Amino acid sequence: MKNRVITISREFGSGGRTIGKLVAQKLGIPCYDYEIISKIAEESGFSKEYIENEAEKTSYFRPYGMMSNQDYMWTIQIETILELAKKGSCVIVGRCADYVLKDRADCLNVFIHSSFEKRAERIVKEYGETEVPTEKRLKDKDKKRASYYQYYTDKKWGDYRNYHLALDSGELGIEKCVEIIADLY
Amino acid sequence: MKNRVITISREFGSGGRTIGKLVAQKLGIPCYDYEIISKIAEESGFSKEYIENEAEKTSYFRPYGMMSNQDYMWTIQIETILELAKKGSCVIVGRCADYVLKDRADCLNVFIHSSFEKRAERIVKEYGETEVPTEKRLKDKDKKRASYYQYYTDKKWGDYRNYHLALDSGELGIEKCVEIIADLY
Repeated sequence: MKNRVITISREFGSGGRTIGKLVAQKLGIPCYDYEIISKIAEESGFSKEYIENEAEKTSYFRPYGMMSNQDYMWTIQIETILELAKKGSCVIVGRCADYVLKDRADCLNVFIHSSFEKRAERIVKEYGETEVPTEKRLKDKDKKRASYYQYYTDKKWGDYRNYHLALDSGELGIEKCVEIIADLY
Repeated sequence: MKNRVITISREFGSGGRTIGKLVAQKLGIPCYDYEIISKIAEESGFSKEYIENEAEKTSYFRPYGMMSNQDYMWTIQIETILELAKKGSCVIVGRCADYVLKDRADCLNVFIHSSFEKRAERIVKEYGETEVPTEKRLKDKDKKRASYYQYYTDKKWGDYRNYHLALDSGELGIEKCVEIIADLY
């Protein structure tokens, strides 16, 4: 039998990562997020900072006959996700896991979103203010996630067809989202 | 206090109407669907068949200084939905109720979808085969709903931002969808 994996895609500032952790806690299964970055770092020799900043950039530059750094990280990411899903049931946040695990695990694919206002409020509270205006931070990050997803999966990020469940965490509340997801597991 | 209204938008063949009825039954509140068409018929003098077939056609033909039949039906539809939501808590299936009731009721906006294969299976089982191939029936109806929604609301049908909850009824099952929605009410 295939392992049961909950994949969580999320808008920046929607609390998707927190929801993933709480669901995993509730179910007593691991939640992978930064662990995947550590694994890519270990395998590739790139630093975690480089991976965090660069992995989601969809670079079109490829030296003749070679993979771009991004493509190389992508292949390690695929291997890592497949390995984790094989090991046992888990929650995976981000990293196109819904696409990677299609037909490879018994997935519950979740998308978490929230209104612009509530996300702005949340990122300032969670990560503090920066020199970059909040609106720009949200837009840039979402745009990056959307184009990364599109580039490697050839599907539209946030398209309801890709998820079994899409939840507005701002309206429903983090607790309720956790409850619904854990219950569906 | 505003009444609590559950609005259900749905892909054709996803079982959204059935889910709406079952949620209403479970909560002991009315579910409006065909009732809205009856009301438009009553107010406008158009037959129910005409309304069912024509209301969702977004006609661009407008005699000078006059409303198109579609626009006229739309205005009655708005009045009807507002009236129903004012009367008490309820479930409303389709008819852009999420848009009409924005800021006018305490809404839980739900979108129900399902894979193409499961919907094809369902419409043949529910409505029987017709001369029109199943694929075309699904595509035509969804296209009509999408353009109707877009035309009158200026928003994209199925866009996750418009709904608090989007559920894949084919994967989660009708019963589970009913449970989640009723629980969130």
